Amino acid sequence: MIVETLAIGTELLLGQIVNSNAADIASRLADAGMTHYRQGVIGDNRDRMDDAIRYATGRCDALIMTGGIGPTADDVTRESVAAVAGVPLITDEAYIEEMRERWKARGREFPESNIRQAQRPAGAQVIPNRKGSAPGFRMEIDGCWVISLPGVPAEMLTMLDEEVMPFLRSVAGPGLGITESRMLRTWGMSEARVGEELDDLFRELENPTVAFLASAGEIKIRLTANAPTSEKAKEIIAPVEAEIRERLGSLVFGADEDTIETVLHRMLRGKGWTFGSAESATGGLIARRMTALGGASEVFRGSIVAYATDLKVGLLGVDASEVEQHGVVSEETALSMARGARASLGVDVAVAVTGSAGPEPMEQPVGTMIVAVVTPEGESVRTLMMPGDRERIRAYTATAALHMVRRAIEP
Amino acid sequence: MIVETLAIGTELLLGQIVNSNAADIASRLADAGMTHYRQGVIGDNRDRMDDAIRYATGRCDALIMTGGIGPTADDVTRESVAAVAGVPLITDEAYIEEMRERWKARGREFPESNIRQAQRPAGAQVIPNRKGSAPGFRMEIDGCWVISLPGVPAEMLTMLDEEVMPFLRSVAGPGLGITESRMLRTWGMSEARVGEELDDLFRELENPTVAFLASAGEIKIRLTANAPTSEKAKEIIAPVEAEIRERLGSLVFGADEDTIETVLHRMLRGKGWTFGSAESATGGLIARRMTALGGASEVFRGSIVAYATDLKVGLLGVDASEVEQHGVVSEETALSMARGARASLGVDVAVAVTGSAGPEPMEQPVGTMIVAVVTPEGESVRTLMMPGDRERIRAYTATAALHMVRRAIEP
Repeated sequence: MIVETLAIGTELLLGQIVNSNAADIASRLADAGMTHYRQGVIGDNRDRMDDAIRYATGRCDALIMTGGIGPTADDVTRESVAAVAGVPLITDEAYIEEMRERWKARGREFPESNIRQAQRPAGAQVIPNRKGSAPGFRMEIDGCWVISLPGVPAEMLTMLDEEVMPFLRSVAGPGLGITESRMLRTWGMSEARVGEELDDLFRELENPTVAFLASAGEIKIRLTANAPTSEKAKEIIAPVEAEIRERLGSLVFGADEDTIETVLHRMLRGKGWTFGSAESATGGLIARRMTALGGASEVFRGSIVAYATDLKVGLLGVDASEVEQHGVVSEETALSMARGARASLGVDVAVAVTGSAGPEPMEQPVGTMIVAVVTPEGESVRTLMMPGDRERIRAYTATAALHMVRRAIEP
Repeated sequence: MIVETLAIGTELLLGQIVNSNAADIASRLADAGMTHYRQGVIGDNRDRMDDAIRYATGRCDALIMTGGIGPTADDVTRESVAAVAGVPLITDEAYIEEMRERWKARGREFPESNIRQAQRPAGAQVIPNRKGSAPGFRMEIDGCWVISLPGVPAEMLTMLDEEVMPFLRSVAGPGLGITESRMLRTWGMSEARVGEELDDLFRELENPTVAFLASAGEIKIRLTANAPTSEKAKEIIAPVEAEIRERLGSLVFGADEDTIETVLHRMLRGKGWTFGSAESATGGLIARRMTALGGASEVFRGSIVAYATDLKVGLLGVDASEVEQHGVVSEETALSMARGARASLGVDVAVAVTGSAGPEPMEQPVGTMIVAVVTPEGESVRTLMMPGDRERIRAYTATAALHMVRRAIEP
């Protein structure tokens, strides 16, 4: 079952809105185990629409179109589908009456332009729209089911879930199977390196497939399997996941919805330890990320953002002469900050970050970031060289710091 | 000048990420007065990529491709463009050396697979990537400029603005005219309200056009003019900008690249005042935003993220009995926190935030956020009711808090 999507709307081509419909439809198709090779976007233009529909119907089993079925003159999806199908437009008088009643019930005057929404290609079946006044429709053209839905996400999604996906499943029949996917989250290795470690799996495996996705210093590994049942699909994924975990060890820190914040929160709660940070170069980024979780207060007590050097001394009890001797951007100072945070915040585990985030270097070359972790069981400190601009350096360092805390308290 | 975009990435077709790149590119093309008829999305598949590139090069003047140029085996954009152009891939030995040096500087082992990123179709020109290791490239195929950029938005956008748009403008020639746009930034009014205030301008003006964009509580007003020269375009914008500033007064806090952070930084530096924050519900978000600026230390000294109640007492000197009496989420506590931050951080201006950000209510209904500002000239405190989820509540409150500081120190 090969499905394509085609979004209609000049506002998409002007960059005024993002085509989130495409992603929502795509995830449904993936879950249903349907093949989705192409997405397209065109404007409210008859010629290009006819062209796109003809091209798509010639190569796929279903084409899901969004947009272009409103009441205004530039909504020409109905006309275009009818033209490609070689049928006239018919007008649904009953639906016109229904709309008139609805407007009357709301004490509003009925805009005659709405009548366009009661039209559809002859032979097309209506797809009711509970949330709006523009119904969708579907019709088969050259063995391809052309499905037309509104562009308004709330209306489109409801119709997709209630009408379109069940219909497509019935068309596809039982042969399709179920697709399950598993996302393994890793940190501590470049995408290139993860790719090398898993190259054979990536190349040889077809079910499950293995794909990589890099985001903010973390590399996600996605395993996608198709099978007659969800259980079977999961059984296909399990051994490959085990193999990858075997190869990458503690580089894999979580799966699916896990994030380093949720994983760390869970680990700390498990040990009954509280957590806090002393931040200079990251300026509160670590605190912000740990408090983004609801229920953060179970483990996170607070942070001292000591951006000015004298606050590192005043609030974190860092020894001024030590800063004098080693510098603000030094492993000694980072460690003192972490010890100080542990005391002043009254936490079991503290992480401290100091560094030179740019654009102007501070003591050390831009990108020199130092992270210290102090736990009831020991201390560790590491100097990182981070590439990129200030924003990237700070973000990646905050992620690295959270992972260093994880490593420090890992069994 | 007809331009199409083609995004490469199986994760897009699986609905795991939204194709925001397409909208960002589209808005640039619209600003430049270039015609954008189609957007496409395909997976990491050679056959379909070759097919899509051939089809597009046959009908447009430029094809902007995003994604598929990373180091892993599934990145095949380079191979596909070379195949369609009928040229071999060449390897840029100098760039390999450059990468090796960069990795060495970071004390990391160089992943050999990165060598793929030094390849490009013979005859293609490199588009440097300041923010990542995968350079882009451009080459002409059958009179169509095929431009290949990374899929990572931050990298893609920088290359688009610094290299690709200027190049496309030079290709298009002077006929397009010059488009200039001016972004006025407002805070304190709903989009609907701003729309009403400027409705006549929005409806009647065609050059410049007026558009509204809501983002995180701020409403941006975009004026876009097209003229033979940049000077003429700016002359067309100037009187409309003056009219809008006249109507909206101090709701307009900045223009173009200004942000509330840069504006506040400038104002504080002008007064020679230092700044700091005491954060509970926003958990470091204000500190993070103020320290995102290079040179932040000129005015920002630090923050005390007192997430646990006893830290509000211990580190901010909030009176425990007062918290007992009024609650943590109260204007009294917010004011004490701000006063405490002013003393312990040794700053002239302090802002404090406490509140109930959810998902579970804390003392007050979720969304009840309290912001207090203390300056050398006075104190102010305000209770806000913020809609949305925890993330939105925190983000909008941080923005509101920074604007309340601006209002407090405004002449």
